[in-house]
Amino acid sequence: MTNAVSVLGLGPMGQALSGALLDKGHRVTVWNRTASKAEALRARGAVVAPDPAAAVAASDLTLINVVDHDAVDSILAMTGDAADGRVIVGLSSDTPDRARQTAKLVAHRGGRYLDGAIMTPTSTIGTPEASILFAGPREIFDAHRDVFATLGVPTWLDEDTGRAAAFDMSLLDLFWTSVSGFMHAMEVAKANGIGPSELLPHALGIVGILSPILEEFVERVENNRHGDSSAPVSSVAVSVRHLIAASHDAGVDAGMLEVFRGYVDVAVADGHGAEEVSSIATAMADRR
Amino acid sequence: MTNAVSVLGLGPMGQALSGALLDKGHRVTVWNRTASKAEALRARGAVVAPDPAAAVAASDLTLINVVDHDAVDSILAMTGDAADGRVIVGLSSDTPDRARQTAKLVAHRGGRYLDGAIMTPTSTIGTPEASILFAGPREIFDAHRDVFATLGVPTWLDEDTGRAAAFDMSLLDLFWTSVSGFMHAMEVAKANGIGPSELLPHALGIVGILSPILEEFVERVENNRHGDSSAPVSSVAVSVRHLIAASHDAGVDAGMLEVFRGYVDVAVADGHGAEEVSSIATAMADRR
Repeated sequence: MTNAVSVLGLGPMGQALSGALLDKGHRVTVWNRTASKAEALRARGAVVAPDPAAAVAASDLTLINVVDHDAVDSILAMTGDAADGRVIVGLSSDTPDRARQTAKLVAHRGGRYLDGAIMTPTSTIGTPEASILFAGPREIFDAHRDVFATLGVPTWLDEDTGRAAAFDMSLLDLFWTSVSGFMHAMEVAKANGIGPSELLPHALGIVGILSPILEEFVERVENNRHGDSSAPVSSVAVSVRHLIAASHDAGVDAGMLEVFRGYVDVAVADGHGAEEVSSIATAMADRR
Repeated sequence: MTNAVSVLGLGPMGQALSGALLDKGHRVTVWNRTASKAEALRARGAVVAPDPAAAVAASDLTLINVVDHDAVDSILAMTGDAADGRVIVGLSSDTPDRARQTAKLVAHRGGRYLDGAIMTPTSTIGTPEASILFAGPREIFDAHRDVFATLGVPTWLDEDTGRAAAFDMSLLDLFWTSVSGFMHAMEVAKANGIGPSELLPHALGIVGILSPILEEFVERVENNRHGDSSAPVSSVAVSVRHLIAASHDAGVDAGMLEVFRGYVDVAVADGHGAEEVSSIATAMADRR
């Protein structure tokens, strides 16, 4: 069954979402602030709306993928009463609180809001590799599940509209911290005469051992079991200082490692030196 | 062929190294500052030396695995002239410069030094899953390759004694930054009512997409190709602010993300806003 779906925001992800919908034969209406970005989709059969109100009015279901919820809300402010009786699905990345605020804004305009978080890269959209988490009224999710399944594997989490964003924030946190760690490692290696291609296979080896280690950490944290250590906090406290020294020797800023050292040192000061490093999570409490 | 091998330092890794050597029938002599840690190995057939000098004198080849090179050097200071004509292999983690200093210290005592970096967890030692990188005189590596192969897959890198440590520092940097990012993500999730076990499968999904992304970054950095972006620096600059806000909303310190934001902002200020985030690596130059 095909549906009418509008897509607002045609960055790389919005383009991928629209393309996947067109590929499955849905009737797609698109809008983007910079209109030229819609031309490729027009050539593939999309209707290009002149403004957000016309785009929302064209379909029962509108997906919005823009840079964040400030941008979502500013677009919704341009839709007049078009959202009345319609469903808006936000697929933009922002905090749980901002997702809940947008839900209120949509309700105020007579519409219903479902929040979503796309957990996989643009290239996965339209394939079973794509994972999209949803939060908000289950009935909205169920009514449009078929459309969502066009885009990837949809998972409904919770009635709380902020739930998908909470996953999104946690997972992007892991993602960007890891990616930043890799870029930092590349810079330290480079200063030591090790090129990115030479480092890569070893870095992939590190990525390969992460999964069982994260599984072990979760088990330890769930059971508050931080003894029986093969990587005690006290030895990490020594090791991180060498990493910082190596970074400075290489002329590379060590800011992220210095923050990590702070958590490790708090854990040692709190008496966790002999425990597994999984015990440092509690040292990350906001100390502002 | 079995060999006489001494192992100094019996923390979890030293125990694993000694155990793997004993399993393959090598004649193993061990020493540890806290002697009680040697008892389990004595029961498995190891000879327990009374001091570092006796341990080094017992074998042509001595492996040292202690917390860092300050500890290595303080142990070597206790060996008198035992190292004269013998091979010392350092398997402790420290900076490239410290590895080179230890090589000089051993040479000064008439011995020959090879540096090594163990790239995989304790549990892999003695299996083909273990990876150990070596740097220093190739002839030493070749002469003892069979013993090293008892412990894991040995790879010789370079005549420069600091080379294994340079890999070690870069890869531990990636490892601890990623692990810290996961612990931080767990804390943010927890404050939002998402338990570690609930987050885990999604976190493993993020780890799963890291490898192709690191491969792409290396290709971009090698070719200085940062255009054609699906994740431009400017949108990451927005996203990281939401991650910081979500962290503070959750009562979790956002220090590492704040450092990352600093790199992203420098990249934007330097005119890289429209480029792929791979372009931010150069913003990590030491600004102290």
